[in-house]
Amino acid sequence: MSDHSTSFEARLKARATAVETCLSGILGETIQADEIARPAPLLAAMRHGLLNGGKRLRPFLVIESTALLGGDPEAALRIAAALECVHSYSLVHDDLPAMDDDDLRRGQPTVHVAHGEANAILAGDSLLTLAFDIIAAPETNLPDRQKTELVLALARASGIGGMAGGQALDLAAEGCVLDEAGITTLQAMKTGALIRFACEAGAIISAGSADDRRLMRQYGETIGLAFQLADDLLDLTADAETMGKATGKDAARGKGTLISLRGQDWAENRLVALVADAAGLLRSFGTRASILNETARFIANRDH
Amino acid sequence: MSDHSTSFEARLKARATAVETCLSGILGETIQADEIARPAPLLAAMRHGLLNGGKRLRPFLVIESTALLGGDPEAALRIAAALECVHSYSLVHDDLPAMDDDDLRRGQPTVHVAHGEANAILAGDSLLTLAFDIIAAPETNLPDRQKTELVLALARASGIGGMAGGQALDLAAEGCVLDEAGITTLQAMKTGALIRFACEAGAIISAGSADDRRLMRQYGETIGLAFQLADDLLDLTADAETMGKATGKDAARGKGTLISLRGQDWAENRLVALVADAAGLLRSFGTRASILNETARFIANRDH
Repeated sequence: MSDHSTSFEARLKARATAVETCLSGILGETIQADEIARPAPLLAAMRHGLLNGGKRLRPFLVIESTALLGGDPEAALRIAAALECVHSYSLVHDDLPAMDDDDLRRGQPTVHVAHGEANAILAGDSLLTLAFDIIAAPETNLPDRQKTELVLALARASGIGGMAGGQALDLAAEGCVLDEAGITTLQAMKTGALIRFACEAGAIISAGSADDRRLMRQYGETIGLAFQLADDLLDLTADAETMGKATGKDAARGKGTLISLRGQDWAENRLVALVADAAGLLRSFGTRASILNETARFIANRDH
Repeated sequence: MSDHSTSFEARLKARATAVETCLSGILGETIQADEIARPAPLLAAMRHGLLNGGKRLRPFLVIESTALLGGDPEAALRIAAALECVHSYSLVHDDLPAMDDDDLRRGQPTVHVAHGEANAILAGDSLLTLAFDIIAAPETNLPDRQKTELVLALARASGIGGMAGGQALDLAAEGCVLDEAGITTLQAMKTGALIRFACEAGAIISAGSADDRRLMRQYGETIGLAFQLADDLLDLTADAETMGKATGKDAARGKGTLISLRGQDWAENRLVALVADAAGLLRSFGTRASILNETARFIANRDH
């Protein structure tokens, strides 16, 4: 590992720690204005789903996109925390017996295994709700205009037209053979939409120009494609211990990926091209974009 | 039935129709900005959960509270629709096998029975997400300040400190005997918080004074108590056909209600007192409050 990537991973880790500290504070036992109580079993299930040592890649993208465009880092941390609530809720619900039926997540029992299915459903619901709470709360120091834009963009990225719709397509596709267009739509919704939001959020938080916002969206879409392709490669090649979850699942479920259609060599070349595309989109920012360029490389080359 | 109540029920019905038209438009097949696709099976499950002929009491409260305080009726209709999305999502998830395991809702198969459990989970998730989408969307003609306040108030009423937390307490209480304080907290969260929000929303939409907002909250809390007490009475006395769902469930589950602690006479007297309290809170509005006063009576006396 080069010094360069060591320093990147240290930065990723530091941001993850900051996000976890923020989330742990938000999900403490202290009730907030207009809350009546925080039932302990539900709070425990929410914390289990949220504070489980993920890489916090989406929060990292919010924070670094905001830094690139000169927005307030404290506001970025709060929006990063909100986004991680949405991502975590989706994992809790996706793992449920009626969905992907996974018992293991990052090497730990999934929320429904540890806390029961009812609490897992409610914990996911409550994490999703909390995301919008965090954006709108007075502690998030942003003008109301930006808060409204963030609520709308996050809702669109997460709902039927984005992540939840992607999971529905994924479940419907089990045992079918999707064509390339079908796989691309599914992946753009299931994983791409939230990654795109993470990058676009930086432009919203910074009250960036329409050009900045469009650039950050395109960057987000590009690294979202890279993320999914790297994920499909890992499912094919990594072992469960490294991943902290079951691998080889795509093939076992007869689930088509772009790799099953196009082959591994194509995928590896495509990853190189996507990293170059991402860098091209950020060229006008010069060396200030070096962290986001490195993020694209990290996403394409990660081994877990 | 008096002419007076006939006219009230006609008004309730007319508002319900307006809300359903609004919701049906929002949940059509046309994708919105930033949406990638609307998968048909998920859309069908969402429509099943949302457009099922409910009384639309919470939307009615948003609309009538806004009318009392002179807010924009079009904005009120949108916020009413958003609130109904949250209420409907909670019913879809509460009916799931891992939760209350109900097959019947308003005389129809529940969403998981008709569309499968995975689609029911995702439909609930997507309806909850849609609620915040509707508030923040440009079609909702309100200043960003009010949108932010509505997002925060709805999230607090719906999440761990409100409705979802109340459902967690309810599940944890099965087979236990709760004391009066425990039952009161549970009910204030599970059903009270959303009804309170409905009334408070009218004050937010109308940019009402702090006094107006406090009054509408108190009115909402008061009729929320009446709603729950009437519900517990109906569970005890009505038959399944009238209710369109199973009755006698509380007793069958050994679930304590205030009626099991205090008796039916107490409950009926308490309902009369709550209707009077609600009227007292609205006295300063004079005859303009007649609809909301009638709403309190309707809630206390409803037979289904």
